[in-house]
Amino acid sequence: MMATIGAEVSAVRPGEVEIVLPFSDKILQQHGFIHAGAVATIADSACGYAALTVMPRDAAVLTTEFKINLLAPAKGERLRAIGRVIRSGKKLVVTLGEVFAEQGASSKQVALITATMMVVETGTGLRD
Amino acid sequence: MMATIGAEVSAVRPGEVEIVLPFSDKILQQHGFIHAGAVATIADSACGYAALTVMPRDAAVLTTEFKINLLAPAKGERLRAIGRVIRSGKKLVVTLGEVFAEQGASSKQVALITATMMVVETGTGLRD
Amino acid sequence: MMATIGAEVSAVRPGEVEIVLPFSDKILQQHGFIHAGAVATIADSACGYAALTVMPRDAAVLTTEFKINLLAPAKGERLRAIGRVIRSGKKLVVTLGEVFAEQGASSKQVALITATMMVVETGTGLRD
Amino acid sequence: MMATIGAEVSAVRPGEVEIVLPFSDKILQQHGFIHAGAVATIADSACGYAALTVMPRDAAVLTTEFKINLLAPAKGERLRAIGRVIRSGKKLVVTLGEVFAEQGASSKQVALITATMMVVETGTGLRD
Repeated sequence: MMATIGAEVSAVRPGEVEIVLPFSDKILQQHGFIHAGAVATIADSACGYAALTVMPRDAAVLTTEFKINLLAPAKGERLRAIGRVIRSGKKLVVTLGEVFAEQGASSKQVALITATMMVVETGTGLRD
Repeated sequence: MMATIGAEVSAVRPGEVEIVLPFSDKILQQHGFIHAGAVATIADSACGYAALTVMPRDAAVLTTEFKINLLAPAKGERLRAIGRVIRSGKKLVVTLGEVFAEQGASSKQVALITATMMVVETGTGLRD
Repeated sequence: MMATIGAEVSAVRPGEVEIVLPFSDKILQQHGFIHAGAVATIADSACGYAALTVMPRDAAVLTTEFKINLLAPAKGERLRAIGRVIRSGKKLVVTLGEVFAEQGASSKQVALITATMMVVETGTGLRD
Repeated sequence: MMATIGAEVSAVRPGEVEIVLPFSDKILQQHGFIHAGAVATIADSACGYAALTVMPRDAAVLTTEFKINLLAPAKGERLRAIGRVIRSGKKLVVTLGEVFAEQGASSKQVALITATMMVVETGTGLRD
């Protein structure tokens, strides 16, 4: 899905991951803005990968829920999503993410997300 | 975005819209399930289109926020999202949506969404 | 907390619980409407109790997250919250709730909630 | 409602408001923790008041939706909620809030909230 829309992980730090999504026609909605679904996809992925950075090597995570506020129409040269771990528990990891629309040197926040990731037991065969 | 992931509107009723998304490799995440972002994209679109069915012809809507609970891993032949209007106001329309994973004749709910759509004034030039 | 605001459980069915909150001065906000916090309190409680109806006798639940849409100002003789289980898993129970404002025989929906309950292991000593 | 549970505004800065809620028996749930509804009430109020700080003197706000993640059981001498404005628009103000449980000099985050406030036209007679 990340490759389909053209998104790439651009930075990984402990508890924090950045994803960049360049503008392209294939992620637009009917008004010419980037689709809320594309914004949510990179925001959710940044949060999920951030959760992985604080977990054991062989663990996996699944999103159980997220909520996103869309603050402004998403337009520009690229979107940058930053996901951060707020609390890491044995069963659940709660994360907070922000998405910015970038045009040249300017940057504007376009979305705010909170997401819960469930830690999947390795016995299930899932691994990240 | 809807075309990029292969989603299509399959039914439109007053206050209710259905979208179908056939399974394909391009919407998967790393475990082989359909990406939460793809699930959210069709759920949000079904809710947005449902909001449009209760508005004047020349009005437009933008998603201001949504929250999605992912109830089970999304896998199967196709996903079906159904969005319904819960309350329609002058400025905001609140919607509720469900996403089902279908395999042959069986169907299992995989997501639950609530979304708020903002009514955009036609003077802005936006139109749906 | 439920006693403090004057709320009472009015019906319990498998997977569904109703709570009634009579109007009183002590639950208002500054405009004379019932405070969003009071609406959320009974909606969350109805969802939590609904989750308990589908669990073993000695299990306990804790709310991990909820999202509430406030559809109209909450005013009237009483509020009625109805919480229902949407999906019951081993670790998490996802619920959906509605809150209605009642005046005589008329009823109007004023809130929509989705909530996730975490199943607490009995070894923790917590019990509902 | 704020008086009923014993909460008080403790700090007001442009775009940011703090509310303190001392521990008391009247805000507990069945396990002896502070009820999620009380946590949500002060978090929502802090966000609503924060929104008011960035608006004209005679404007009013109503919460249209909020989502809260409960990160840890709420217990201690007092709770402190901090609400901040993330984006202020003509119709909607989006806010982010945190709730901390305090015991002596120690502080632990117990909740994370995102809330949308609707700006109410003064012609309605509502005023904050």
